Amino acid sequence: MRILITNDDGVTSRGLLMLAEILSKKHEVLVVAPESEQSATGHAITIRMPLWVKRVALSRVFPVFATTGTPADCVKLGVEVLSNGAVDLVISGINRGFNLGTDIIYSGTVSGALEGVLLGIPSVAVSGPISESFNVEQAAEFVNKFIAEFDFNMLPAFCALNINIPEGKIKGWRAARQSKRRFADRFESRRDPSGKTYYWLYGDVVEDDSDPEADYRVVNQGYASVTPISVFLTEENVLKTMRRR
Amino acid sequence: MRILITNDDGVTSRGLLMLAEILSKKHEVLVVAPESEQSATGHAITIRMPLWVKRVALSRVFPVFATTGTPADCVKLGVEVLSNGAVDLVISGINRGFNLGTDIIYSGTVSGALEGVLLGIPSVAVSGPISESFNVEQAAEFVNKFIAEFDFNMLPAFCALNINIPEGKIKGWRAARQSKRRFADRFESRRDPSGKTYYWLYGDVVEDDSDPEADYRVVNQGYASVTPISVFLTEENVLKTMRRR
Repeated sequence: MRILITNDDGVTSRGLLMLAEILSKKHEVLVVAPESEQSATGHAITIRMPLWVKRVALSRVFPVFATTGTPADCVKLGVEVLSNGAVDLVISGINRGFNLGTDIIYSGTVSGALEGVLLGIPSVAVSGPISESFNVEQAAEFVNKFIAEFDFNMLPAFCALNINIPEGKIKGWRAARQSKRRFADRFESRRDPSGKTYYWLYGDVVEDDSDPEADYRVVNQGYASVTPISVFLTEENVLKTMRRR
Repeated sequence: MRILITNDDGVTSRGLLMLAEILSKKHEVLVVAPESEQSATGHAITIRMPLWVKRVALSRVFPVFATTGTPADCVKLGVEVLSNGAVDLVISGINRGFNLGTDIIYSGTVSGALEGVLLGIPSVAVSGPISESFNVEQAAEFVNKFIAEFDFNMLPAFCALNINIPEGKIKGWRAARQSKRRFADRFESRRDPSGKTYYWLYGDVVEDDSDPEADYRVVNQGYASVTPISVFLTEENVLKTMRRR
């Protein structure tokens, strides 16, 4: 396969480069990633500014391009401009930090995969814990095996996979549902040296979803969670009710 | 009601200020908006940088705050820091430019409303055409009437409304589904004065959705489209199939 890999942690991220290295043994790999960290960019694209791209010497095996854009920009550029031929699979990751529950809609990592399916290409987002002891190599090997075995033909148009890999031994993978895991936001108010107030966002995780298929529960049990996600947000049940009014 | 209004076109936008002015006749209005344009920011939040907020003298009737953040940041700040009490409704808009089809996942306007429902508050995104002849005042009056009449209790948790208002006379509103309207992307490659290549994204709209309830069709027929949208992206049918494997 010809595989385009991006991320939102930036082009020097270990998760990205380890994944590219392992996949390049069996596949043609192209890396196009932001030159600096883009976490929590959501599904941003750059339309009011030009995009700059440079080839960087981070591998002798596969080409690596750093861009001034977001993960979604990188996927568009990779597919439309930088690839030597049709891309068979887009992978965004391996992100340093889970993308579980409502994280998904803030996630640059997930947006890379959603951009892939918008362009008609099977796409996967992959994330792991922030922990220093997370075994990135084992996670990359898991992804390598997963993409060889998973039947991407079962996915409808515009449907991507969001994968989260647990710390420690990976027991396998399980289908999971995006949970309502979320952050209880707070702002810390501070003063700058001249006395002006500014705000810094932080929050505590709230994990109160009773769904046994909730993504974070699957991960906590030692399995990689695999959630099929769509770019279509319509709440069909509500639409039905509104139509009847 | 206490209504928090934001947008992604920036705090000086006519669509935002006209809406705030008209709603302030019957409601307590608070405006918190980005100081500069944030279009296509997706659902970005600012977590690696502090946020700056200043009160600006754009109205004598309602308070207006400009922030260095995204629409999602503005909603969080409005609800958690700047409001004098519980916010009853979040409105993001009126955006200059439709948010139809796959636009939704790139849209800062829509992300403002999604952030509202993530905080447990009924929320609405409102957009209109870019056209200079779009009647912003009529659109704001439509929103005023809509929020007075619509039963927000029918919406489940985490469900927002995405409204698009047509140009010309508004015939009323219709429930609509997010369509697969999208852009066929292209990059224009240019050279800077020193000879280095850069890229500029542009695209043509593709409207090939046969669904009679497609959002853009409803708007083209002269009705405001009202699409209930969720923060949960799980593709349930695929999840079911994956579970059975």
